Amino acid sequence: MHAYRTHNCGALRLADAGQEVRLSGWVHRKRDHGNLLFLDLRDHYGITQCVVDTSSPIFKAIEGARTEFVVRIDGKVVKRSPETVNSKLPTGEIEVQVKAFELLSTAEMLPLQVNSDEDAGEEIRLRYRFLDLRRERVHQNILLRSRVISSIRRRMIDQGFTEFQTPILTSSSPEGARDFLVPSRMHPGKFYALPQAPQQFKQLLMIAGFDRYFQIAPCFRDEDSRADRSPGEFYQLDFEMSFVTQEDVFAAIEPVLHGVFEEFANGRKVSARPFPRIAFDESMLKYGSDKPDLRNPIVIADVTEAFRDSGFGIFAKGVAAGSIVRAIPAPGAADKPRSFFDKLNEWAREQGAGGLGYIVYAAEGAKGPIAKNLDEARVAKIKAATGAKDGDAVFFVCDKKQTAEKFAGTVRTKLGDELALIDKNRFEFCWIVDFPMYERNEETGQIEFSHNPFSMPQGGLDALVNKDPLEIKAFQYDIVCNGVELSSGAIRNHLPDIMYKAFAIAGYGADEVERRFGGMLNALKFGAPPHGGSAPGIDRIVMLLADERNIREIIAFPLNQKAEDLLMQAPAEVPEARLKELHIRLALPLKK
Amino acid sequence: MHAYRTHNCGALRLADAGQEVRLSGWVHRKRDHGNLLFLDLRDHYGITQCVVDTSSPIFKAIEGARTEFVVRIDGKVVKRSPETVNSKLPTGEIEVQVKAFELLSTAEMLPLQVNSDEDAGEEIRLRYRFLDLRRERVHQNILLRSRVISSIRRRMIDQGFTEFQTPILTSSSPEGARDFLVPSRMHPGKFYALPQAPQQFKQLLMIAGFDRYFQIAPCFRDEDSRADRSPGEFYQLDFEMSFVTQEDVFAAIEPVLHGVFEEFANGRKVSARPFPRIAFDESMLKYGSDKPDLRNPIVIADVTEAFRDSGFGIFAKGVAAGSIVRAIPAPGAADKPRSFFDKLNEWAREQGAGGLGYIVYAAEGAKGPIAKNLDEARVAKIKAATGAKDGDAVFFVCDKKQTAEKFAGTVRTKLGDELALIDKNRFEFCWIVDFPMYERNEETGQIEFSHNPFSMPQGGLDALVNKDPLEIKAFQYDIVCNGVELSSGAIRNHLPDIMYKAFAIAGYGADEVERRFGGMLNALKFGAPPHGGSAPGIDRIVMLLADERNIREIIAFPLNQKAEDLLMQAPAEVPEARLKELHIRLALPLKK
Repeated sequence: MHAYRTHNCGALRLADAGQEVRLSGWVHRKRDHGNLLFLDLRDHYGITQCVVDTSSPIFKAIEGARTEFVVRIDGKVVKRSPETVNSKLPTGEIEVQVKAFELLSTAEMLPLQVNSDEDAGEEIRLRYRFLDLRRERVHQNILLRSRVISSIRRRMIDQGFTEFQTPILTSSSPEGARDFLVPSRMHPGKFYALPQAPQQFKQLLMIAGFDRYFQIAPCFRDEDSRADRSPGEFYQLDFEMSFVTQEDVFAAIEPVLHGVFEEFANGRKVSARPFPRIAFDESMLKYGSDKPDLRNPIVIADVTEAFRDSGFGIFAKGVAAGSIVRAIPAPGAADKPRSFFDKLNEWAREQGAGGLGYIVYAAEGAKGPIAKNLDEARVAKIKAATGAKDGDAVFFVCDKKQTAEKFAGTVRTKLGDELALIDKNRFEFCWIVDFPMYERNEETGQIEFSHNPFSMPQGGLDALVNKDPLEIKAFQYDIVCNGVELSSGAIRNHLPDIMYKAFAIAGYGADEVERRFGGMLNALKFGAPPHGGSAPGIDRIVMLLADERNIREIIAFPLNQKAEDLLMQAPAEVPEARLKELHIRLALPLKK
Repeated sequence: MHAYRTHNCGALRLADAGQEVRLSGWVHRKRDHGNLLFLDLRDHYGITQCVVDTSSPIFKAIEGARTEFVVRIDGKVVKRSPETVNSKLPTGEIEVQVKAFELLSTAEMLPLQVNSDEDAGEEIRLRYRFLDLRRERVHQNILLRSRVISSIRRRMIDQGFTEFQTPILTSSSPEGARDFLVPSRMHPGKFYALPQAPQQFKQLLMIAGFDRYFQIAPCFRDEDSRADRSPGEFYQLDFEMSFVTQEDVFAAIEPVLHGVFEEFANGRKVSARPFPRIAFDESMLKYGSDKPDLRNPIVIADVTEAFRDSGFGIFAKGVAAGSIVRAIPAPGAADKPRSFFDKLNEWAREQGAGGLGYIVYAAEGAKGPIAKNLDEARVAKIKAATGAKDGDAVFFVCDKKQTAEKFAGTVRTKLGDELALIDKNRFEFCWIVDFPMYERNEETGQIEFSHNPFSMPQGGLDALVNKDPLEIKAFQYDIVCNGVELSSGAIRNHLPDIMYKAFAIAGYGADEVERRFGGMLNALKFGAPPHGGSAPGIDRIVMLLADERNIREIIAFPLNQKAEDLLMQAPAEVPEARLKELHIRLALPLKK
């Protein structure tokens, strides 16, 4: 017989009754029923109920095994009597009558309960993560993560992609967030940087002719932590393709994302392919965001003209001064009490807005302070523009375009929540496309890159030379699911001439471009193919699928909010001699 | 029609003749045949011959495209005439008559030739790696690496393993090589370390109950480089299993290694499963190494007794003083000229040995200086011990055990090479088992751990208490292929009591053990399962399969021997402000 087990703790079924078996696992729970002691034995695969008679010679030994002790049990599989069958357990039709018992290891007093759904505090959970990870929910989340990644890999390979490893000890990124640095022992005064993303390497792989690259890539940013982003390291499905248009990128990755979400949807509905493509301008208008949650049925409308020169003085004055008015319909809100509207008004003030005006479209006609000051035609125009029906309300935001747009989006989300319009059982994807290449910095008046300076401008060199920079769109796109941006991507600018010109518009001379981005620029000068890609965040995908709000729930060994590993004691002080080897000295802040 | 291609450059066949197609790729080679210009268009998938008539209106444009320019070609697929078919190319039965042409990007003068088998120097190759990677052999090696890793993943999952990601920003390893350190911005004076291996995390995953873990794990060691080890980072197939014996570990991983090697053997023979298990002591005796190359048929024998009190004074004296004699048979060497033996003798002296004595077993009897001084019975005894036949020679090494053993192994390898006994078309695997737990430090006389202090001693606590430490074996094992150690592994010591005792024997007090290995020890106190694993090196596996001697040939973006990335300019200086943020200052060595 095997030293530890003939079966795992999730394997035995009624058909095994009569067999002599050996199981090993953790004591999950013990129940003393007078002359019988029940012991639930747990391993990775499941739980099996074991039972021993108090009269048994090994009873004493077993009784001494506390929860989370690791034990080996030999015994006979027997059918449970009908009234004791546990239909919740796959092994629930049988139990094991214990004949022999070996203690494999013991456990000290537990700082957190493994067999409980209740979370201990973050500090305890992370310090004793090896215990926390034994708990059903966390254990399953981490497995889900593994399965999702494995599924993504399989699907990417099926799409003709090849996985490559790119360097982790590399150079500082030319732009973006803060790098983690690694002092070089062999090169005094010099540092490696951990990659914020393998952006440059994946482009180099395309220039090297590899055509379809992907990687479940570890990425590193020395940024303060957020609930949805791990401090320190995170993973992305990094991919890149050569000789492709934007639509080719979508066509390659949609089946992967759709397939993965369907595979792990567990009853939730995934939006059909092709995912909607929404232009950035349209998204800002209709959803007040470039990451719209399409589960929310509310669509914002522009009603600036309905208020121009109208009797509602405050908006009319605003519009005359260049403000716009956005209308956010609130389906079925007409019968809400006055307090509903008052509370929203108060909430809007807390958000820094002047308030939140509205019209109620009741069966008997439009109501509310705004409706009183507008003629019927204007009220009807707003109704038509928003598609509001009798029984709905419509809220209004009047401000400078960017502010109004954004706040209308916030109101849309708020109304979606308040009116319970969000179907939690759906995954709604969309592509946001046609991002502006440039924007004007409101403070300096300068033209700046809106997003990624390395994206290909739509219209190429011709557009850069002949169009108003603020009118130029980029071949840049985001994939969004349920209001969560999974990733940004782009068709890259693979032509040095266009790169120089694009940077010149943003105020960079050729020498500065060469100094800052010389490595990449140099590679583009030796026959670069047109290429593009994206990099959906693995952690965010798993959070959506696991329906968890905190990144900690879907990573086996996360750092805490202060970027500390409480279990392994990282970061930690290091001996002076090590620093000397690395040619650095501490320069500690003065104690306060 | 697609903007860049209807087919890739490896796709077209005779059946496509007559089709109008669009291809994009690099100009691999151009040949001018009077009134025809041939252009080999290359992409990731293959090469397609394109042809244009000098009378064509686009001839001028195409003629201007130099090698490694990226171009798009529209044209008609036509059958080649029988005498121009290229049977080496999958597309060799057709060519494309060019009708339209677009220049997608240009290439400056090439610092290395892509369409050549000749290697440029390392400096140029790494600085222009994106060009070097376009070359057939390197390109295929990198793809082989990807395919090998993908195959390993599939096979591990088929064996019931789950892949997990363990942290890369973590704590310093308690033992082993030098860590790379990462200064913490949020915790002044503290540092993360990059993992030398996920050893502690994989054990924690077992303690967390995950049962079968694996990871294609990036590992980091700040060590000087070797041809077979990348400076900086490398990858291993890290795996661990719970509730297992040593044989279970072998049974789990053998099908994976065997399967992967068979899959990519390309005609080479892979040793049958189960792989031989060879005890450490036996391996040192028979092969003079714990990493025997079993393709070498030579088996060393101990012939100490044959020389004791013999007429061959120098060996007899040595044996009397405690030395041993090892015999290395050299099949078929009897008819080698005297110079063969003289050269080996000289080589041995260069290696620091006194020389290399031998007996030649000729048909007419034993010959050579040693045979002259030995009686016939002893000569026959040696013949029997080594299995030598007439026509063979036998070489001898006489020294203290460790030195003799090791040098006999060196001689065995040398003879294997000199006599061309190594079959290059085989992959010969073996497990080396039963490593000693402890050894005596010859200088200090102290008992020390031979290898991994965290391995379970055979016989457990009882052996530690009751046996001579130097007699105790560990449940530790290496997997070796063709003389290359792919990995070390062990059944871990999962019991704190045994851990304390094992360290005590090596001179460590409980407090020191707790101070140095407290994190792991603490985890073992909360119900640890018996567990074990290993971590075969991915880079070494790929090197064996690719038949490459230098790690640089199987990594897309390797650091050079000085741990520099010549392409991305890493490591590099960083702005003072960044160091300040990290609470460090440079402490540069004085200029010499």
